[in-house]
Amino acid sequence: MGKAEAVLDETMLIRDVDRGSHYIRDWTGEADGDPSFVARPRNVDEVVELVRYCADNGLAVVPQGGHTGLVEGASARIEGGHVLVSLERMNRIRAIDPLNFSVEVEAGCVLEVLHQAVEAEDLMFPLSLGAKGSCQIGGNVATNAGGINVLRYGMMRDLVLGLEVVLPDGRVWNGLKTLRKDNTGYDLKQLFLGSEGTLGIVTAATLKLFPRPSHVETMFLAVETAAEAIRLFAAARRHLADLLSAFELISDRSVELALTMPDLVNPLEMAAPYYVLLEASSSGPLDLEALVGGFLEFALEEGMILDGVRASSVAQAQKIWAIREGVVEAQVKHGTYLRTDVSVPISEVAVCIDEVEVALAGAVADGVVLTYGHIGDGNMHFVVMPPLTMAEGPERHAWIKASEAVIFEIVDRRGGSISAEHGIGRVKRSAFEKRASATQMELLRAIRSAIDPDNRMNPGAIFE
Amino acid sequence: MGKAEAVLDETMLIRDVDRGSHYIRDWTGEADGDPSFVARPRNVDEVVELVRYCADNGLAVVPQGGHTGLVEGASARIEGGHVLVSLERMNRIRAIDPLNFSVEVEAGCVLEVLHQAVEAEDLMFPLSLGAKGSCQIGGNVATNAGGINVLRYGMMRDLVLGLEVVLPDGRVWNGLKTLRKDNTGYDLKQLFLGSEGTLGIVTAATLKLFPRPSHVETMFLAVETAAEAIRLFAAARRHLADLLSAFELISDRSVELALTMPDLVNPLEMAAPYYVLLEASSSGPLDLEALVGGFLEFALEEGMILDGVRASSVAQAQKIWAIREGVVEAQVKHGTYLRTDVSVPISEVAVCIDEVEVALAGAVADGVVLTYGHIGDGNMHFVVMPPLTMAEGPERHAWIKASEAVIFEIVDRRGGSISAEHGIGRVKRSAFEKRASATQMELLRAIRSAIDPDNRMNPGAIFE
Repeated sequence: MGKAEAVLDETMLIRDVDRGSHYIRDWTGEADGDPSFVARPRNVDEVVELVRYCADNGLAVVPQGGHTGLVEGASARIEGGHVLVSLERMNRIRAIDPLNFSVEVEAGCVLEVLHQAVEAEDLMFPLSLGAKGSCQIGGNVATNAGGINVLRYGMMRDLVLGLEVVLPDGRVWNGLKTLRKDNTGYDLKQLFLGSEGTLGIVTAATLKLFPRPSHVETMFLAVETAAEAIRLFAAARRHLADLLSAFELISDRSVELALTMPDLVNPLEMAAPYYVLLEASSSGPLDLEALVGGFLEFALEEGMILDGVRASSVAQAQKIWAIREGVVEAQVKHGTYLRTDVSVPISEVAVCIDEVEVALAGAVADGVVLTYGHIGDGNMHFVVMPPLTMAEGPERHAWIKASEAVIFEIVDRRGGSISAEHGIGRVKRSAFEKRASATQMELLRAIRSAIDPDNRMNPGAIFE
Repeated sequence: MGKAEAVLDETMLIRDVDRGSHYIRDWTGEADGDPSFVARPRNVDEVVELVRYCADNGLAVVPQGGHTGLVEGASARIEGGHVLVSLERMNRIRAIDPLNFSVEVEAGCVLEVLHQAVEAEDLMFPLSLGAKGSCQIGGNVATNAGGINVLRYGMMRDLVLGLEVVLPDGRVWNGLKTLRKDNTGYDLKQLFLGSEGTLGIVTAATLKLFPRPSHVETMFLAVETAAEAIRLFAAARRHLADLLSAFELISDRSVELALTMPDLVNPLEMAAPYYVLLEASSSGPLDLEALVGGFLEFALEEGMILDGVRASSVAQAQKIWAIREGVVEAQVKHGTYLRTDVSVPISEVAVCIDEVEVALAGAVADGVVLTYGHIGDGNMHFVVMPPLTMAEGPERHAWIKASEAVIFEIVDRRGGSISAEHGIGRVKRSAFEKRASATQMELLRAIRSAIDPDNRMNPGAIFE
């Protein structure tokens, strides 16, 4: 640490980090890290200085955005020490180009701040997720974030035009183009998208923007089975001309839990095994209300839905979304439990849900199973909560692991993924390594060694 | 070659290749290669056998699809010899999954064959380009193909869910998932997309499908300036709720040339400096005709267009597209000339076009300049044809190089790319290397060495 004082600008550093601060404790409150110190660079030059300092002093580097990830990608305990690099001070929106439908933004910009800035220009940046008030663009890039609009607009990978990255040895790769098409050599930005801080530090990005929707239709629909929900999805894509922007499944048990939150009510008069939150949006004079109204009638006539309600105001739409958000928020008082983030082909979603629910009912009958997720992307978040009477500790841990094994076995069999959008971090590393083929692992290692030969960037994340 | 007879199945090989065949001569008729022999494997095992044979015998490997590329990516003369690997026999469509909106297809499948197969299921694979009747999926992957629907559906990169790749040493990476979301480790398929055969041989792909549009509206619009065309584009994106599927600019000189082709007429009664081919498409009961009609009125009232016609039948729409295609087809009788494939930010398109036209009028006043392209993606194909009286040879070559330098200088200044969709191959290698930063080149080399340490995959393509 002596050398640090000599070389680094102290105004960049926090040496005595509050162990309760967001640098140390993650969003879930479950993970904590032990960095030697926290660095908060203000510009690319300071990031370069930091990275070079770490190289000289044999320190690992762990980049951190809003620290809202769920897989301990930015919470590390690393032998030999590490510097936690928070990008939060690099948070400027550098330029919005309305004619090019693009924006250049620094890594530390909070997602919701970006939303508001581009909305002021009648534009939209579509990536949206629960953590939008805290998560940062750099973290969204590093984790290839997903969320509720992937169906229509894709994941972060699909929204990035260019990146600026500080490499492990302090070189800067400036790939901040704003082109829709650029076939000149390998697409380097793809390497860093989803690399979880293991290949370099993303310091800025250029992103695609879209016309801000002038009309949004939000519906809450009751369906009998997961299979009906998938049939409804295929019909909705076609009927609504791909103007569908969200298609979320929520099981009855999940809605019940959400309704324990204050001020939430089921907008439907009936209870059903599953609910679908369907949203469509458009700009311009298109009559979306009529289109969506026609679709609801069609779906009722075809027997795809049991009942449905269309929000007639923004306030009503927010109340429908509050149920979806309530499913997550209501989980916090349940102690340690299992969260999953799996995906299967959309055509396998229904059978996967049915199998998981039956298998869990057999394996951990005393728990509570919540089934919900972005099923328009094939992405489910099965949540399994042990009985409240079960104490924290090894028994609870084993119970959770057993539930996870049940779910993962079914997902594997259905050609799925054990991490659809959350990434691998440290939490899912062994589950990932177990499933990856030898060739896949060799390719991953070859790339990592080629970019970070000394293994100093976020060591222990994704794979060893 | 002795060893080849011992190891390789002769029914896979063509030893005496007709020098006029499509294996040797490319689509433009300009490039030819000199492979030691041509191999046409029928399955992945045969590709593995081939690649291992080449490794053992120190032969380079050049994969080839439909050989319709324009940058000599699959036409090589390589010291020490090479095997040209044509994937044309691996052309099966393995499975279409309508509920998952996906298809698994082998590399040698011709793009138009895939179009027809998925249309039979009321689905669409949106990638479309002039060479669709000959180009193959593997080539589309390897070159990250673009074309006329990129605006709405993205380039090949955006349409691929998974790949199967034979690596330079014969290992097979099976990444044929059909998931919309899969955040497990680096996204390896991105490496091979656009790698132009330098990192491995793509043998199969899983691709995204879309509902087949039930309604397509095609318009031909007259505009005063390139700037008005860009203003029209931004208005169209918003007004048509992103249902825009093509937005092509064609200059008056380009239309004039196209109209020298048989049976083509300008559907407008007036001549104008520029024309826009605008297409919107939708599925379901949406009233696209009314939406588009309203937009035309709006654009006329706002003075964005001078005149416009909406095709009232499929036949009329085809006649409008025939003008766009005629621009390319009518070029063939003009000897050697300059084709470009540049892109700039959409907000720079108009100024770039104006600058290029003025600069070329000064530099090569005796030539014919055609301006056209996918300007909704910022992608222009400036074509510059020397006077017909200029003989083939060094003078003509120098004339072409001078025109290219004029265009590239402007594109560089506007933050653009010298290859928007055609790739680098061998034709644009030195122009690319001149423009790439040292860090970019180091990263490219690090990746190539990590995957192909012996530099046996398509050596000489993209960069040295």
